[in-house]
Amino acid sequence: MEIKYIEKVKKAFEMVHTKKPLVHHITNYVTVNDCANITLAIGASPIMADDIREVEAITSISSALVLNIGTLNERTVQAMLAAGEKANKLEIPVVFDPVGAGASELRNRTTEQILEKVQLSVLRGNMSEIRFIAGLEASTKGVDASDADINSGLAAGCSISETIAKKYGCVAAITGETDIVSDGQHTLLLENGTKLLSGITGTGCMCTSLIGSFCGATEDFLVAAAGGILCMGIAGEAAAEKVGKEGSGSLHKAIIDSVSNMNAEIFTKRAKIHEA
Amino acid sequence: MEIKYIEKVKKAFEMVHTKKPLVHHITNYVTVNDCANITLAIGASPIMADDIREVEAITSISSALVLNIGTLNERTVQAMLAAGEKANKLEIPVVFDPVGAGASELRNRTTEQILEKVQLSVLRGNMSEIRFIAGLEASTKGVDASDADINSGLAAGCSISETIAKKYGCVAAITGETDIVSDGQHTLLLENGTKLLSGITGTGCMCTSLIGSFCGATEDFLVAAAGGILCMGIAGEAAAEKVGKEGSGSLHKAIIDSVSNMNAEIFTKRAKIHEA
Amino acid sequence: MEIKYIEKVKKAFEMVHTKKPLVHHITNYVTVNDCANITLAIGASPIMADDIREVEAITSISSALVLNIGTLNERTVQAMLAAGEKANKLEIPVVFDPVGAGASELRNRTTEQILEKVQLSVLRGNMSEIRFIAGLEASTKGVDASDADINSGLAAGCSISETIAKKYGCVAAITGETDIVSDGQHTLLLENGTKLLSGITGTGCMCTSLIGSFCGATEDFLVAAAGGILCMGIAGEAAAEKVGKEGSGSLHKAIIDSVSNMNAEIFTKRAKIHEA
Repeated sequence: MEIKYIEKVKKAFEMVHTKKPLVHHITNYVTVNDCANITLAIGASPIMADDIREVEAITSISSALVLNIGTLNERTVQAMLAAGEKANKLEIPVVFDPVGAGASELRNRTTEQILEKVQLSVLRGNMSEIRFIAGLEASTKGVDASDADINSGLAAGCSISETIAKKYGCVAAITGETDIVSDGQHTLLLENGTKLLSGITGTGCMCTSLIGSFCGATEDFLVAAAGGILCMGIAGEAAAEKVGKEGSGSLHKAIIDSVSNMNAEIFTKRAKIHEA
Repeated sequence: MEIKYIEKVKKAFEMVHTKKPLVHHITNYVTVNDCANITLAIGASPIMADDIREVEAITSISSALVLNIGTLNERTVQAMLAAGEKANKLEIPVVFDPVGAGASELRNRTTEQILEKVQLSVLRGNMSEIRFIAGLEASTKGVDASDADINSGLAAGCSISETIAKKYGCVAAITGETDIVSDGQHTLLLENGTKLLSGITGTGCMCTSLIGSFCGATEDFLVAAAGGILCMGIAGEAAAEKVGKEGSGSLHKAIIDSVSNMNAEIFTKRAKIHEA
Repeated sequence: MEIKYIEKVKKAFEMVHTKKPLVHHITNYVTVNDCANITLAIGASPIMADDIREVEAITSISSALVLNIGTLNERTVQAMLAAGEKANKLEIPVVFDPVGAGASELRNRTTEQILEKVQLSVLRGNMSEIRFIAGLEASTKGVDASDADINSGLAAGCSISETIAKKYGCVAAITGETDIVSDGQHTLLLENGTKLLSGITGTGCMCTSLIGSFCGATEDFLVAAAGGILCMGIAGEAAAEKVGKEGSGSLHKAIIDSVSNMNAEIFTKRAKIHEA
């Protein structure tokens, strides 16, 4: 079973390289450069555009849309909704990263609006964000998951991701020490990564961009979510082995390196994925 | 006396690591990624949020607020004022970086507004920016200090920082070849750093984020300002020794590395701090 | 002839280092940090400012203005037009990077507005963007040139750049595998660079910032455009030789390193430039 998913991810990865999908991002200004570079590193092509007067046009020429509310504002929220609705009309996959959901009413309301008005292909967040979306008690620490939420347990996480996946008809991914991905029918556990990733801003955002890149190349969104998360986790591991002791600046650079060097053999060798 | 301050800084540094304070930034889009990464590197947690509808909520859950007008606009200036006033109500420390004060009427007026409406804990700028705030002749070169201002002398600088500290009831820090930090009673001179830092954008902004991280963990803002500036200076020195000859891209990365590797021993070994 | 241009570029390069021109950027939030750092690396000084209430003031103290529509919006487009018109009044050179022209009506209309209202010194784009401006069939792929446009041929490219240069009274530069620079009278071909540059976001934007830096130091805009493009191409080559196998994160860092290490000898040794 494990091998089945690794083979599917490898195939999807090859399709990213072959198709080089254009991935439209409406995202935050903190990690946007890393999102663009990691999209290129995986073999896709990024375009960032957030003016309401062009987002529908840009989405229309793209193969996937990534929405990320890391530094949302009134102008960009309207653009996200317009782009999301356009993507739905054209059956272009939409990936949503509810950064900081739970941390402010604005983020909560915007998350609800996007979930209500846009049919997502993949929703990816940390445990606090996804617990908020599930209507559970969540104690976010800004844009990071709180320790209490992280320790709420794997079984609970699987249950939450399944419930969310069914409720919103999308793949729901919770990233953390063990990543959980569910389409409501199948729930996968992914165990790559390193704690050092939390010392660099934007590893969640970059993961979402990688998922968006996969979604631009395959219609199997469970595999796309697993593929993006595996890429990020494996890249983090490889980077940590190589330069983890040098510090977080070196690790940051090495993560992009590792994604740009990713290949099928590395997936075979490193990927840790199994059904829950 | 020197040893007293180093010990205080070391203690504050340990408190940053223990408390991991959330530091709310309303800052510019040029150096924001570096500000987030250096905040993580020192052991704190960054959150960037600038929409007027959420800044008060985000400030409320934070341990410090950093205001930086590097790429100010009408929308973000209003957000800065609202967040600053909220921070004051909740007694959350506010650190202000008046980037480019003196370079345009907008920056001048905004700087004045923030100084008037928000009680600061620390004000950090280069010699041109602080001279402008002091009402002295200042000839800024965009966002960098002019040579004339830099050469206006250390004694004058000490006097200015003391005057500003007393006038605004905050710690006033002027960073340059010798950094000057004053709370109006005590004035400290810090001599770490390297000229190579001026070849990388955002070293001033990053320094301000480090000060914000310290302010989130200690109420001794003189020590917090000294701690943040020492971290940046020592990190710059260490990075320059290691990769200074490779070029400014490598130095940029190595500065983040050095901050993420900072520890009490390094402060003891390297910190150059004494009262004026 | 080749030697003549290399000598002129070397002289202009020295002038950048001597004059350290302030270069006002109104640019996108994706690659802005790299634009600032590469401007510093070449020896100039960047300032990013986009609020309509200050752009004229900032342009007035600058030696060159760079306009880049990578993430344009209503607010920044107005700022670009105001800054451009101010620059024209003060005879400050303006460099324009029409990122993604052809990809949306907003980008097309904005490009036309800037071309109509602002007298440019240099226009730099990829083959799809410049073909769009020339009114030719263009099939942009987001912010990257399409394969069809890239393969439209060198002779056609020379003809297009000459025509555009004459029509808009500026230097027109098309960057790609072979870069083409024309002032309508002389057309130069530049052959430095590496395909690996396309794996990093913002190499086009950085190239435009380098051109802006040169324009702030010399009035010979043909030489300025050639100089900026040569710097970027040579830096890319040197970086690829050094760390190309490590991955795109390392290459990114090494490009900035190479620009910060650029000198006259390296131009003599590496520059490949000749008249068409």
